[in-house]
Amino acid sequence: VATPAITSPSVNRVVALVERPIAIPQASDFRIEERPIPAIGPGEFLVRNIYLSVDPAQRGWAAAVANYSDAVPLGSPMRALAVGIVMESRNKDIQAGEYYYGWFGWQDYCAADPGHILRRVDPDLAPLSAYAGVLGINGMTAYLALMKLGEPQRSETVLVSTAAGAVGSIVGQLARSLGCATVGLTSTETKVELCRRRFGYDQALSYKRQDFAAALAGLCPRGVHVLFDNAGGDILDVSLRLMAVRGRVIQCGTASIAAWSPPPLGLRNEREVLTKRLRWSGFVIFDHASQFDAATAVLIRSLNSGQLVYDEDISHGITHAPGALASLYAGENTGKKLIFIGA
Amino acid sequence: VATPAITSPSVNRVVALVERPIAIPQASDFRIEERPIPAIGPGEFLVRNIYLSVDPAQRGWAAAVANYSDAVPLGSPMRALAVGIVMESRNKDIQAGEYYYGWFGWQDYCAADPGHILRRVDPDLAPLSAYAGVLGINGMTAYLALMKLGEPQRSETVLVSTAAGAVGSIVGQLARSLGCATVGLTSTETKVELCRRRFGYDQALSYKRQDFAAALAGLCPRGVHVLFDNAGGDILDVSLRLMAVRGRVIQCGTASIAAWSPPPLGLRNEREVLTKRLRWSGFVIFDHASQFDAATAVLIRSLNSGQLVYDEDISHGITHAPGALASLYAGENTGKKLIFIGA
Repeated sequence: VATPAITSPSVNRVVALVERPIAIPQASDFRIEERPIPAIGPGEFLVRNIYLSVDPAQRGWAAAVANYSDAVPLGSPMRALAVGIVMESRNKDIQAGEYYYGWFGWQDYCAADPGHILRRVDPDLAPLSAYAGVLGINGMTAYLALMKLGEPQRSETVLVSTAAGAVGSIVGQLARSLGCATVGLTSTETKVELCRRRFGYDQALSYKRQDFAAALAGLCPRGVHVLFDNAGGDILDVSLRLMAVRGRVIQCGTASIAAWSPPPLGLRNEREVLTKRLRWSGFVIFDHASQFDAATAVLIRSLNSGQLVYDEDISHGITHAPGALASLYAGENTGKKLIFIGA
Repeated sequence: VATPAITSPSVNRVVALVERPIAIPQASDFRIEERPIPAIGPGEFLVRNIYLSVDPAQRGWAAAVANYSDAVPLGSPMRALAVGIVMESRNKDIQAGEYYYGWFGWQDYCAADPGHILRRVDPDLAPLSAYAGVLGINGMTAYLALMKLGEPQRSETVLVSTAAGAVGSIVGQLARSLGCATVGLTSTETKVELCRRRFGYDQALSYKRQDFAAALAGLCPRGVHVLFDNAGGDILDVSLRLMAVRGRVIQCGTASIAAWSPPPLGLRNEREVLTKRLRWSGFVIFDHASQFDAATAVLIRSLNSGQLVYDEDISHGITHAPGALASLYAGENTGKKLIFIGA
């Protein structure tokens, strides 16, 4: 696999969080600032970022409301995953020229220590960009959440919301390869076609259709055994009412909820949980780091055999970063959203 | 243990369901009718009921809305558990004079087959009434749901709604015996005292207090690790927001919801599930019949050692049956609600 030629700008362009977003982060919540290239201390190494990752979870990291992580301080580089190359190292375990995937932020350069690393990147096994998507937290999430919390069994029905997205598209393919009947929910008829033709869903449906609830029920005649939900909101409420007895619900995202303040209302779901004996679990990928290597090995095998396909939506230039989350939440991307800044 | 002297009426008084309740079943939804004592066929046996059980779950069985069981047909005896004695048998495995706990209905007599039996009752080990409560589905639910779905660990905080009830009072005692910090929610200050003094809760609180949410947060400074919820509704929503990371929510009842039609609204809880990585599970005791004997053995040991106490609220006479569920949902009982009809 050929890796891109990387340029080395003489300043560090930083996408700083300058406003605390209440709802979906907008371009105006960020400002691109030129700062000096950071100096590295003992044990540290300097990363030149190549691909910046755009992930729905960044909304929660930017928000002031309590989340599973501390809020990004105002004025700091936006917290983000990225794939980069080591330019210089003062750590004996890390060598210049090595590639890593980790917490390097939306910026050109990061003075990192080993705690920033999620995993080493091997450019001989897959393209660099894949390590930020199908082999990054998206693929890890799809595989580990589906297998550990969903426990799908052959011939069960697996329903995936945001079915054409960076996580959902992989969930659908994995579930199908396990012999499950797969149903995908997405936003547009174009993506419905993509779900069916490219990602192999047995059925797919736009949740914007007028008759969405009835149409979905028709696609799940035996009920839903595993609901892989990245959406929340009405999409979740409708889907929950189609669950089979002892179904498993994986809460992996809440993309359809624009804002949590004031607290949004929805249908009460406790009766569904009780009478159907559901198991509804939350999934945050960073709890499962010890299993990334095993999951990656499975996914690389599937990629190499052609069983698993993925799409990327790559913008060029760091100027695309400030508006990237708003675009992601608007569903404008097809596949994993990345920003290439290596040139 | 002395068993009561049982009379044998010459007719079968049946508490028939005559109206389909929309919300909590009221006395007017039932009618007491005198019917002939049923004849028993081959393989059947005639049970004379002694204690009729009054259980929150009966609301669901009487309702037309889909539940985990079929709705009780209008005109039929109300579906109910009871403890009774075998008067006559045409089944070689069942002898006259034996006591059973099972699906014998709100009526004097039941022509039963072995499928009606939940378990044999041994009046030498515990009072007959206990087999319909602490050794019946209430104790089984408390023990099996807490252990299997809650997985409480020493020094964790266990929060119980309907803490003074037939299930909750047992949950609190079991959790405390495991070394957990226990917090009970109940309706009145009298029951708060009962939770503290009789059922050994470390803390107890009325959910009717104005400052309920803030006061509860103050009682759970490390968050809630196990929420044993019989209430649903606002009580659930407030409690869910106090969960600790990786907390377990057991949905065992929805007593605080008066009606499911029209569908009630509440706070959206998917973000809590996601960011706290909760596991929210529904529990229906009848899924776990294979473990009743083991659970009973544990509970009888705790009763005999004095570690486990329970209260009963026993009305005398079948005329109390029609209004019993309304009374139960109004929280008028203290402990397990039973109707003694043996005299």
